[in-house]
Amino acid sequence: MYTDEQKKRASVWFSSLQDTLIQLLESFEESALFARKTWTREGGGGGTMALLKGDVFEKAGVNVSTVFGEFSKEFQCSIPGAQENPTFWASGISVVVHPRSPHIPIIHMNTRMIVTQKGWFGGGIDLTPCLPNKVDTKEFHQALKTTCDEFNTTYYPTFKAEADTYFYLPHRNEPRGVGGIFYDNVNSEDWETDFAFTQAVGTTFGKIYAELVKRHLHTPWGDAEREIQLRKRGRYVEFNLIYDRGTHFGLKTNGNIEAIFMSLPPLVAWE
Amino acid sequence: MYTDEQKKRASVWFSSLQDTLIQLLESFEESALFARKTWTREGGGGGTMALLKGDVFEKAGVNVSTVFGEFSKEFQCSIPGAQENPTFWASGISVVVHPRSPHIPIIHMNTRMIVTQKGWFGGGIDLTPCLPNKVDTKEFHQALKTTCDEFNTTYYPTFKAEADTYFYLPHRNEPRGVGGIFYDNVNSEDWETDFAFTQAVGTTFGKIYAELVKRHLHTPWGDAEREIQLRKRGRYVEFNLIYDRGTHFGLKTNGNIEAIFMSLPPLVAWE
Repeated sequence: MYTDEQKKRASVWFSSLQDTLIQLLESFEESALFARKTWTREGGGGGTMALLKGDVFEKAGVNVSTVFGEFSKEFQCSIPGAQENPTFWASGISVVVHPRSPHIPIIHMNTRMIVTQKGWFGGGIDLTPCLPNKVDTKEFHQALKTTCDEFNTTYYPTFKAEADTYFYLPHRNEPRGVGGIFYDNVNSEDWETDFAFTQAVGTTFGKIYAELVKRHLHTPWGDAEREIQLRKRGRYVEFNLIYDRGTHFGLKTNGNIEAIFMSLPPLVAWE
Repeated sequence: MYTDEQKKRASVWFSSLQDTLIQLLESFEESALFARKTWTREGGGGGTMALLKGDVFEKAGVNVSTVFGEFSKEFQCSIPGAQENPTFWASGISVVVHPRSPHIPIIHMNTRMIVTQKGWFGGGIDLTPCLPNKVDTKEFHQALKTTCDEFNTTYYPTFKAEADTYFYLPHRNEPRGVGGIFYDNVNSEDWETDFAFTQAVGTTFGKIYAELVKRHLHTPWGDAEREIQLRKRGRYVEFNLIYDRGTHFGLKTNGNIEAIFMSLPPLVAWE
C-alpha cells in the first residue's frame, strides 16, 4: 500500500499534467480556451473537467480526478486487494482529442494510480487516425517504445500487445485505430520508478501529439475527408459504448456522466 | 410449437409488410427510393434489408429476416423451450426511421414470431420526438391503445409499462422517447389471434406514423432545432449500443452488422 505522501505527489502531478496539456493544446488555437469545471463525488473526492471546443480541436477533454471511499460489494470481488478491505483511493488523468482536420489523428490517454490493500499504476495511450498515415504510426509507436525501453524492455512489446487486444471491435473485425500501449497493473515494488514511468508516459503523450498536430495543421481537406472522419468517429463511439471498461465502470457506479462521455466525438456519422 | 403452414404465413406477411411500409415511406419522397439488399445466414435463412436515404427521411431502414438453425450453447439456457432442443425458427421485421425534420419524430418498430419447442410473438413500437409535442404523443398512444384493446384490454397497460421500463437510459435518468408498447412473449395458445395482433400492430404503425409525418412535413426549422435533433439522436445511439438487447444479441451471434446497425442515425452530435 502506498503512503499518503505518495498519493499526494501523484495527484499533484496529475493536476500539473492537466495544466501542461491544456496549455499545449491551447497553443494551437487562435483564441479558443478550455473551460474548467470542478465536481465533487458523494462518496469522497472529486475532479476537474476541462473542455475545449476550438478551431483546431473540435472537441478536447482533459479530466483529472482523485476519488476515495469504499468499493460497493459487486466491485470488491473483481478488484485486486479489495476483498479484505473495500477502501480505495484512485487518482488519474484522462485525455481525448477530436481534431477538426481529418488529417490529424484522434488521440486518447488515460493514466492512473490506484490504492487498495495493494497499489499500482495503470493506463495507456492509443492513436486513431481517420486517414491512414504510415509515418505517423511509425513515429508514434517509436516514441512509445523509446519511453517504455527506458524503464523495462518488456514493457513496450507487452503493453503494445495489450493495446492491440483491447482497442479492437470484434463485431467489425477491425482495430479501433493503430494501437499504442495499454497496461493494467504496473507494480514493480519500486514506487519511484513506477511513478516516473507514468510521468514519462504523460510527457511522451504531449510531445508526440504536438508533433503530429504540427505536421498536419495546414494540410487542406474537403467533404470527402470529413465524411471519412465522421464515420471513423462512429467506430470510436461503438467501441466506447459497447466495449470500453472505463465507460461501463463509470455508468454502473453512477459516475459523472459529463466526464464519462467527454470521450464521445462532437459530430458523428454512420452508414 | 407452431406448424410449417403458420411459419410460412408469418414470414410471407412480414415480407408484405416490408413492401407496404417501403411504399408508404417512399410516397413522401420526391424521388428517393429504398435500396434492397438480400443476405443469407450461414446457419440457415437470411433476409432483405431495405435502406432509404431521402429528403424527408434522412435514413430509414426496413429489414425482414427469416432465420433458423440451432442456438449456440450459451443461448440455449436463456431462451424459452430451447433447453431440450436447440432448434429455432424466427421471422420478423424491424423498422427505424430518422427523419430530416426535427419536427417529425424518430420511430421504431420490431415484431417477430419465434419458434423453439415453444412458439410466441414479440415486438413493440416506440416514438422518440426530438421536439416534444403533446398532441403527437397523445394520439400515438391512443392509436396503440385502440389496437391493443381490440385484442385484450390488459395488453396496452402492460405493454406500455414494459416499454417505459425498456426504453430508458438509467445513466441519464431519462426515457429514450415517449414510450409506446413493448412485449416479449405473446402466446395466448390461439395462434390466429396472436398473429392477427402482430398484423394489427404493423398496420397501426404505418397509419399513425403517416399521420405524424404529414402533420409536420412543412413545418419550418433551422439550426437550433437541428442541433437539438442531433443530440437527441446521441441518446438514441447510447441506448442502442449500451442497452438494446437486440443489438447485443446480434453482435454476440455474429449477426449481419449492416442490418444490426441500420438503427443508428446518419448524423449525431454529443455535448
